[in-house]
Amino acid sequence: MLYFNLNRFPMDFKIKDTDGKARVGELILSRGSIRTPAFMPVGTQATVKAMFPENVKSLGADIILCNTYHLMLRPGENLIKELGGLHKFMNWEKPILTDSGGFQVMSLSGLSKKSNEGVEFQSHFDGKKHFLNPEYSIKIQKKLGSDIIMCFDDCASFKSDKSDIALSMKRSMEWAVRSKEEFDLTNGGLLFGIQQGGIYEDLREESTKRLIDVGFQGYALGGLAVGEPQNQMFKILDASASKFPLDKPRYLMGVGKPDDIVGAVLRGVDMFDCVLPTRSGRTGQALTRRGPVNIKNSRHKYDYRPIDPDCNCYTCLNYSRSYLHHVFKSGEIISSMLMTWHNLHYYQELMSNIRDAIINKKLIEFINEFTKLQNSGDLSLI
Amino acid sequence: MLYFNLNRFPMDFKIKDTDGKARVGELILSRGSIRTPAFMPVGTQATVKAMFPENVKSLGADIILCNTYHLMLRPGENLIKELGGLHKFMNWEKPILTDSGGFQVMSLSGLSKKSNEGVEFQSHFDGKKHFLNPEYSIKIQKKLGSDIIMCFDDCASFKSDKSDIALSMKRSMEWAVRSKEEFDLTNGGLLFGIQQGGIYEDLREESTKRLIDVGFQGYALGGLAVGEPQNQMFKILDASASKFPLDKPRYLMGVGKPDDIVGAVLRGVDMFDCVLPTRSGRTGQALTRRGPVNIKNSRHKYDYRPIDPDCNCYTCLNYSRSYLHHVFKSGEIISSMLMTWHNLHYYQELMSNIRDAIINKKLIEFINEFTKLQNSGDLSLI
Repeated sequence: MLYFNLNRFPMDFKIKDTDGKARVGELILSRGSIRTPAFMPVGTQATVKAMFPENVKSLGADIILCNTYHLMLRPGENLIKELGGLHKFMNWEKPILTDSGGFQVMSLSGLSKKSNEGVEFQSHFDGKKHFLNPEYSIKIQKKLGSDIIMCFDDCASFKSDKSDIALSMKRSMEWAVRSKEEFDLTNGGLLFGIQQGGIYEDLREESTKRLIDVGFQGYALGGLAVGEPQNQMFKILDASASKFPLDKPRYLMGVGKPDDIVGAVLRGVDMFDCVLPTRSGRTGQALTRRGPVNIKNSRHKYDYRPIDPDCNCYTCLNYSRSYLHHVFKSGEIISSMLMTWHNLHYYQELMSNIRDAIINKKLIEFINEFTKLQNSGDLSLI
Repeated sequence: MLYFNLNRFPMDFKIKDTDGKARVGELILSRGSIRTPAFMPVGTQATVKAMFPENVKSLGADIILCNTYHLMLRPGENLIKELGGLHKFMNWEKPILTDSGGFQVMSLSGLSKKSNEGVEFQSHFDGKKHFLNPEYSIKIQKKLGSDIIMCFDDCASFKSDKSDIALSMKRSMEWAVRSKEEFDLTNGGLLFGIQQGGIYEDLREESTKRLIDVGFQGYALGGLAVGEPQNQMFKILDASASKFPLDKPRYLMGVGKPDDIVGAVLRGVDMFDCVLPTRSGRTGQALTRRGPVNIKNSRHKYDYRPIDPDCNCYTCLNYSRSYLHHVFKSGEIISSMLMTWHNLHYYQELMSNIRDAIINKKLIEFINEFTKLQNSGDLSLI
């Protein structure tokens, strides 16, 4: 396996403990350390929706993710740079990872035209034409002041033919080289490569090799959790997660549900992001150790209990299901605030418990207990 | 002037200082003291919109207002009572004043049928028929666990003829007697009477006399700030505020804009409530010592300054106008959270400054300075 360490910037990833393939580590960046396995709350438009940044931090998030696609369109990367960078703009001092926009130009924008050069696309806000390519994506992420910059990749639909997914992967690898070249021109942040290749192990392997040949400060798995069954995703992780350099963080993009995360950690993944806890919070779904709880269900109308009597989050300590049901039904903003708080607390507590389990070499026991409780369903009716 | 003190419950209103007709006082209730002149944030549906209760408290609010009309319809007063009362339900330990529903059955509900007995009305949620009268309104407010209960009154449109307003006032006075009789049946809270009579001094005077004959623990002025010019409202206050018993709090319902409040304090009013700071917060209007600032205006797009550089609120200490403009334009929940925070901070700071000015016998100077600054307009462009 070829491996060149081309880092020019201070970056330190310490593996502190392992349990099987699972690792507990610390990624030390200038704006703060990230305890791994880590969950990154999503702050798409320069806000983790319905949360004050101080509260996101207090729940244990060491890093958040922001979206290049959204921010380049509104308010624009130049404005943010002029205002002192994304951290200052949004009042978040800790590290920020920015995605490259590659996924959103496929999933969100109107008609897009792709070539080897890049992607022309229409803004989903106003239909205006924009252009992204590896060079431009990296430039934008640097202007934002991102701590972890992602390569610009080509994302194929998981329903595409293998031949199309192969072409898309190869293009992504060419774009990874261009991303790296652009990244190396100026100081700033870390650069992560993104593996592609759909559900095909041979394509994933080729992708991994090509990324390692270029050399990145971290490695992400892209194009997973896009609709394929969980066991297919786990199969890819089994085959490829441990092929990345041992001493670099591994990031599974856009994942996921609590059981996705637990299964991916077991297979050697260190970092995650997902809109699930924040989006579910706004649509009235609480994520708990006993599985999801839909607060809009009328069974909660008279329920004086918190979402989870064993949860110590602000929401569970102070509000009943009955109140949460009421404010959700009433369309009150505090519904999103309280439910999102609970969900992000649950995710960060899950990550903390996972880290403890790995340190104690008890990850399998933890997962068995976790799965049993997840499947036990919500509390009985009062 | 007849005045019977019929209080059976511990209630203490201390006037600590005066400056002209203006008073600084303290209304001591079992759940906490209210520093007057006081502004009560509005928590219509058991939440001060877009705010955590702890933050409302930290801004200096000693009491909030909740709406009987909304809560009886959803989730219902019996549910709230079963869940341990409104304070516990909404996680607010300090005093709560509830209005009687009289104003909302006129302004919000569908077709309503009034008689001397009470009001039949249609819910604005689902069109279902409901009924309110003095006895029922007081019962609901007691079930909610309100600290300050309002008499059920008949609210006429300010555009009605004097004869209609006179009839409406007389009905309100009959309902005040019935409210008091119902109130006296069981322990709990304080009961405030509500003066009516539109913009007619003679009707207001009759109303005041009849209320004092019954005897209440506080006196409210209703049917003002409903569309009449400010000078007409001030004329009524000039004529009638000081006719209420000196040793009882006076509450001007639904008021108001900062200059309404300042002018009403000068005329002897002690308590206020208004949706303006919270509603404006959600529609992108900041209220400041230099007057309103519309954050959606494109002049703020690149403005690195806070809403008010002299303001010490969380929002002004941590976020630029540019950021607030961005999150408002993006429809982000944090826009409502941050703007509401600023506005409630501004209101509570205004009340604190008013109290200080009265204590220092400098209310007139304060008002002159306040008016000058309000009229100076927003900061110059950067």
